[in-house]
Amino acid sequence: MKTDIPTLMQDRNLDAVVVSGNTDTSSDLAYLTDHAALERALYLHRRDAEPVLFSSVLEREVAAGTGYRVRMWSDYDMNGYLERHDKDRLAAMVAQWSDIFRDEGIYGRVGFYGMGDAGASYVLLRSLAAANPNLDVIGELNPNLFTAARETKDAREIACLREVGARTTAVVDTVVAFLQSQRVQGDTLVRADGAPLTIGDVKAFIRMELAKRNLDESQENIFSQGRDTGVPHNRGDCQMPLRLGRPIIFDIFPRDRETGYYHDITRTFCLGDPPAALARGWEQVKAVFDRVMVELRVGEACSRYQALACDLFEQMGHATIRKDPKTQVGYVHSLGHGVGLDVHEGPTLGLAPTNTALLRPGNVVTVEPGLYYPDDGWGVRIEDTVAFDHDGRLVNLTDYRYDMVIPVG
Amino acid sequence: MKTDIPTLMQDRNLDAVVVSGNTDTSSDLAYLTDHAALERALYLHRRDAEPVLFSSVLEREVAAGTGYRVRMWSDYDMNGYLERHDKDRLAAMVAQWSDIFRDEGIYGRVGFYGMGDAGASYVLLRSLAAANPNLDVIGELNPNLFTAARETKDAREIACLREVGARTTAVVDTVVAFLQSQRVQGDTLVRADGAPLTIGDVKAFIRMELAKRNLDESQENIFSQGRDTGVPHNRGDCQMPLRLGRPIIFDIFPRDRETGYYHDITRTFCLGDPPAALARGWEQVKAVFDRVMVELRVGEACSRYQALACDLFEQMGHATIRKDPKTQVGYVHSLGHGVGLDVHEGPTLGLAPTNTALLRPGNVVTVEPGLYYPDDGWGVRIEDTVAFDHDGRLVNLTDYRYDMVIPVG
Repeated sequence: MKTDIPTLMQDRNLDAVVVSGNTDTSSDLAYLTDHAALERALYLHRRDAEPVLFSSVLEREVAAGTGYRVRMWSDYDMNGYLERHDKDRLAAMVAQWSDIFRDEGIYGRVGFYGMGDAGASYVLLRSLAAANPNLDVIGELNPNLFTAARETKDAREIACLREVGARTTAVVDTVVAFLQSQRVQGDTLVRADGAPLTIGDVKAFIRMELAKRNLDESQENIFSQGRDTGVPHNRGDCQMPLRLGRPIIFDIFPRDRETGYYHDITRTFCLGDPPAALARGWEQVKAVFDRVMVELRVGEACSRYQALACDLFEQMGHATIRKDPKTQVGYVHSLGHGVGLDVHEGPTLGLAPTNTALLRPGNVVTVEPGLYYPDDGWGVRIEDTVAFDHDGRLVNLTDYRYDMVIPVG
Repeated sequence: MKTDIPTLMQDRNLDAVVVSGNTDTSSDLAYLTDHAALERALYLHRRDAEPVLFSSVLEREVAAGTGYRVRMWSDYDMNGYLERHDKDRLAAMVAQWSDIFRDEGIYGRVGFYGMGDAGASYVLLRSLAAANPNLDVIGELNPNLFTAARETKDAREIACLREVGARTTAVVDTVVAFLQSQRVQGDTLVRADGAPLTIGDVKAFIRMELAKRNLDESQENIFSQGRDTGVPHNRGDCQMPLRLGRPIIFDIFPRDRETGYYHDITRTFCLGDPPAALARGWEQVKAVFDRVMVELRVGEACSRYQALACDLFEQMGHATIRKDPKTQVGYVHSLGHGVGLDVHEGPTLGLAPTNTALLRPGNVVTVEPGLYYPDDGWGVRIEDTVAFDHDGRLVNLTDYRYDMVIPVG
């Protein structure tokens, strides 16, 4: 939570943090600014001082709306720095940032965050450190200070996440109704105009339903059919007509345009009766899903649930990435991930040796076991997003039925 | 253009380039992969060898679809590296990348690109350099090798950009028709249900029109009215009813979900007759716009056109950022920017002392003069996106009328 940031700074013995970037790509900056729309912003926070936000004149009102003390880049005019440094962009930028740091008292152990070009960040921070003997540049691999803070959501965030969950499941519901409203001809769904209904048609329908609810997709949803369901991130072939008796994986992870929070849900569907292998696979995935949901509680290790899922799938005779990290069939991914201002964040329900996290109140994670057999023409995944409230109670944010079979015709 | 990459590598004396990140945020990676949907990908290109793309098993088919030689992260299993390096994430990642670089022959002067956390990139690249004496880590501030390549579009890209331009102007046209279809009551537009039509209603309409055309907005459009038009990036107050005789700035910069290319257009509207100050401001901006459009040609310095715009606005008695870099009134921004897989890219029609670029065939830039007087209740901006084809001819990608007055009632 945001209120953890001072403690997280102290744990790292940081005197200050610096977060740079655009809020549409730097989630840490979006977190600090409540998802204000800012481009090329710079947030500076000295441990014992009020934070300050640098913005362009064009965005001065958006910046002011964050409640932070706001300063303008134009107070440190880049063209002037370029003239004084022989038009050397790196030297000019180092001089500009050094002056800003001096004026805002940013020195000592300073953590740098926010998204930027990797090579540019490297040369800028290296040169800043070289030019400022009193500056100790600190960087962290993920999870870092901000991703750690973001792993536990406060009550406002959980309310946002619940709300985007409700709108997302409403979209799923309209998609199921849309499929059911089509005509069946042989083993194919056909539209009112007699043409086969394609995955592209369904995706076009999804886009409109998302837009109606002010949801967007930074990455396209997965609506895959047949053997494509056996490859987890196959997004589906837009030309493919919808057929009865095939697995369909519908995995949708939209973002609320207003607050920036995501939801993540997957259902596996079959139009009409499923073939036996698919029905058995679905029952197995659902059994693992149900068992995990019953066991999930705060205070337990996040990794325990991936171990449990692997135990259960292995007992059923499936390959898992625990036994074979290279496997492309069976259970090939982690059980879940945090959801917030990024669709994939912490904590992770996975087995990395570094994953020592315990489930905590405020965590919001997906639970998404799956089985994948592309050569046998099927895959199954079932996914809900769940929160732990501040009393540690599990709250399922994905209030939607699991039924695989969609009756049609 | 992509075909310039070998020359750009040679100019920089680079033996290899490494581009990392997710394609939805790393435009350089999106460029190299034709906008394939990849998360945590790694592209390696040694000057004399075929490029290779690292992907997760989940995305192996998307990766294969790029046509590059594809390898799996699971060939260098991170959990194994963590076990062998005392669960130290940085040490494990350095060892993993070092092994990959050794196996793929990545050494010498190597340029690093792609979006990542600034501090994480710094510690990773510093540690990689320390661990590999044969690796010289090179980073570049923007513009870098890839943004330089991207500044000139090939024929396929210009066709994509023209197409997204046509769809974007169609959206603008439906918005104008939507405004005209409302009822006028006093000086306010009212909906069929008798409630005032708000900016929020217009934005909801815009969302649907974008979704119909498979366009999305990574950043929300600007639909501002009254004094808000005087602050360039004020996105408009959703609660505000639409009134006659006020300036409206409509600036929309959607992205084609299919190809990833943007378009950028701004019009300034007034429902019914404009007040005199607004009408005069609009005529002045339009005069500058027209003059620049007549003068714009390949071979000329990009900065020349910002100088021209400043000359003209100053002759009209306005403040400009050339004369006063801190001004918040008058002409407060650059004349234009490149448009491609980023909405803001190179080249820039601006006066930075480092801006020595000449306009070239394949450039796609906005032309967007504006005037801003928030305390007087108005702002005006007119913007088209134009391309230079490979014969150097200017092709206006924004085929839409400029009229300020929208007749209503």
